[in-house]
Amino acid sequence: MRKETRQVDVGDVKVGGGAPIVIQSMTNTDTKDVASTLEQIEALAAAGCEIVRVAVVDQKASETLATLVKHSSVPLVADIHFDHRLALTALNGGISKLRLNPGNIGSEAKVREVVKAAQERSVPIRIGVNSGSIAGSILEKYGRTATGMVESALEHIAIFEKLNFHDIVVSLKATDIDLTVQAYEELSSRVNYPLHLGITESGTKWFGTVKSAAGLGALLSRGLGDTLRVSLTADPVEEVKVGWAILSAMGLRQRGPLFISCPTCGRTEIDLEGIAAEVEKRLSDYPLPITIAIMGCVVNGPGEASHADLGITGGNGVGLVFRHGKILRKVAEDELVDALVAEANNLLAER
Amino acid sequence: MRKETRQVDVGDVKVGGGAPIVIQSMTNTDTKDVASTLEQIEALAAAGCEIVRVAVVDQKASETLATLVKHSSVPLVADIHFDHRLALTALNGGISKLRLNPGNIGSEAKVREVVKAAQERSVPIRIGVNSGSIAGSILEKYGRTATGMVESALEHIAIFEKLNFHDIVVSLKATDIDLTVQAYEELSSRVNYPLHLGITESGTKWFGTVKSAAGLGALLSRGLGDTLRVSLTADPVEEVKVGWAILSAMGLRQRGPLFISCPTCGRTEIDLEGIAAEVEKRLSDYPLPITIAIMGCVVNGPGEASHADLGITGGNGVGLVFRHGKILRKVAEDELVDALVAEANNLLAER
Repeated sequence: MRKETRQVDVGDVKVGGGAPIVIQSMTNTDTKDVASTLEQIEALAAAGCEIVRVAVVDQKASETLATLVKHSSVPLVADIHFDHRLALTALNGGISKLRLNPGNIGSEAKVREVVKAAQERSVPIRIGVNSGSIAGSILEKYGRTATGMVESALEHIAIFEKLNFHDIVVSLKATDIDLTVQAYEELSSRVNYPLHLGITESGTKWFGTVKSAAGLGALLSRGLGDTLRVSLTADPVEEVKVGWAILSAMGLRQRGPLFISCPTCGRTEIDLEGIAAEVEKRLSDYPLPITIAIMGCVVNGPGEASHADLGITGGNGVGLVFRHGKILRKVAEDELVDALVAEANNLLAER
Repeated sequence: MRKETRQVDVGDVKVGGGAPIVIQSMTNTDTKDVASTLEQIEALAAAGCEIVRVAVVDQKASETLATLVKHSSVPLVADIHFDHRLALTALNGGISKLRLNPGNIGSEAKVREVVKAAQERSVPIRIGVNSGSIAGSILEKYGRTATGMVESALEHIAIFEKLNFHDIVVSLKATDIDLTVQAYEELSSRVNYPLHLGITESGTKWFGTVKSAAGLGALLSRGLGDTLRVSLTADPVEEVKVGWAILSAMGLRQRGPLFISCPTCGRTEIDLEGIAAEVEKRLSDYPLPITIAIMGCVVNGPGEASHADLGITGGNGVGLVFRHGKILRKVAEDELVDALVAEANNLLAER
C-alpha cells in the first residue's frame, strides 16, 4: 500500500497524492552550453525521463534556463545551492521546480523572496538532505543518523511552513541503505510531503545499478516514494533505464514489455540465454506493456508462465509459443524467436 | 536487525543462526557430465559461491554425485523432484543438502526413509515453494497468495516435524516482489527455520539483475534471509557476482573493495565515468574489503566521502587522493588512478 502524500505540480507532471511514481534524472552537461544540454534533455525524455534537473552553479547558468525551458519537452528543475538570486532568475525563466535548502541560502528575507516568487508561479521546491552534508549543529546532537537527517529536513521544512509554503518535496539521501530506509520511514511518519527517493554515490554503472535497485526496492516495497532518481557514475540515460526497470520489477509502472525468464539449469535443453537476449533485443521498442515469458523446459514452461501474455519454451529441438499458458504454435527451435515476434505483432494488431 | 533463525550445517558452511548470509548458485551443465559440472562448480566457487546446487533429474545423475562431492571445493546440494530414490542415492554419495518437497515424493514411508538417511548424516533439506507450482488443494483455498505459499510451506514442514526432522531451510519464490515479501514475512512470523531467498524467473541478465536486487533488497532490509540465490538467465557465475554486490550494497557482507562514486553533474570537471571504470577494473582483485570513493568535485569530494578508506576527486586538471577525508596527495588529473592504486597498495602493505 503506497503512503498517502500531498500532491505537487511540476509543470504538467504530478508528483505525490497517488500519481504514478515519476522518473527523473539530471543532466551532466555544462548548463550554459544550451545545445548540449537540450540534446541531453531530449535523450533523457526519449528514454522515459519525466522531469529533468539541471545544475545551476552561477548567474550565467541561471540565465540560460529560460531558453532551456522554452525548448524542453519535459519540465525542468533547477538545482541551486547557497545563492538565492539564482533561484529568482530560475523562477523568472519559467523553471518548474527548484531544488534548494532554505536553511542554506542566508537571511529570512532572502528565503521570503524566493518563496514569494515560487508561490506566485505555483512552483514546488525540493528540500534535499544528504547524510554527507548535514549541518554541524545537528551532526553534534544526533550524529550521522536517520534522526539527524530527519531533523535536518524538518528544520528546512519549518522555514517554509512558517512562510505558509507547502509545495514541498523532500529527499533524504545517504549511501547506506539501512540509514536511508530508516530516515525515509521516520520522515514519512511525521510529514506527508511527497518523497523523492535516491541512493547517493551509489557507484559505478554496474554496482550502482545493483545498489540503487536494492535500496529503492527496499523503500518502494514499504510504500514510500513519489518520484525517484537513480544516481550512477554513467550516462544519465542509463539512470532512466534503471529507474524504469526498478519500477517495472516492483510492479509499480511499466514501459514496454516485461520479460520473465527462468534461470538455466541442468534441465534446460535450449540455448535459453541466447534466445532471451535475442527476444529482449528484438522487442525492446515494442510499445505494449505486456509480460513475455522465456522458459527453459517444456514441462513447467507454459504452466509456470500462465500469467504471462506471451511465452516461449523449448526442448529437443522443438519450441512452443503460448499465450496465457495456452499453446498457440509448435515450431522448430530456431524459429522460436520469429514465431514469438509474430505473435507479439498479432497482439499489437488486435489492440 | 536480522531475524533470529535456527542454524543448519551444509557441509562446513553454516546457514542461519546469525551466520553470515551465504551465497549460492546452481549449475546449468548436465549433472552427468562430471568434467563440465566440476569445472562450473569451481568457476562458481572462485567467484565466491559458497554452496552449489546441482539438478538431479534421474538415477544416473544421482549416481554421479559421489564423484562431484569428492572433487568439489564447496558443499553441494542435490535438487530433487518426485523421486525419493534419487534422494537416497544423493545422501549415500555424500551430498551436503537436499532440495526436496516431502509432500511431492509420495507415501509417508518414502519420506520416512529419506528423513532417516538425512538425519543419520546430519544433512539439511530445503523445502522450496514456488508460487507457480502450488498444490491444487491450496490454490483452491487461498489462491496464488502469500498465505497460499506459506500454507504450502507449512504443510511440507509439518511432514518433517512429525518425523522429528528439523534441519530445514525454506524458500518461497515468486516472480512478484510484493508477493514474495509478504510470503517471507508471514512465514518468518510463524517458524524460525532459516530462509533461502530468491526471486524466481527474474529475467534476462540486465533486467534480472535489477529485479533480483530490488526484491532481495526489500527482503534483506527487513532482516530476512540466511542464504540467497540470484536467478538469472545467464552464466551462473554472474548470479554469484550479483549476489555479492547485493550483500555489499546492503552493508551485510563485502568481498574486495566497495566503490562509491557520485553521479556526474554539471559541476563535474573530470572524466568521472572513465576514471571510475578504470579504478573498478584495476582494483577488481584487490583483497581488502575497503571502501573507495570516486568523487566528481573538489569542493564536496573529501568531505562527503570522509567515511571512505580511500578516495579521489579532481577538477581543472588537478586531482586529490585522500584517506578518511584527509588529503594525502595532490597530483595531475591523469595520474589520479595510478596514485590511488599506489595508496591502496600502501594500505595493503600496512595491514
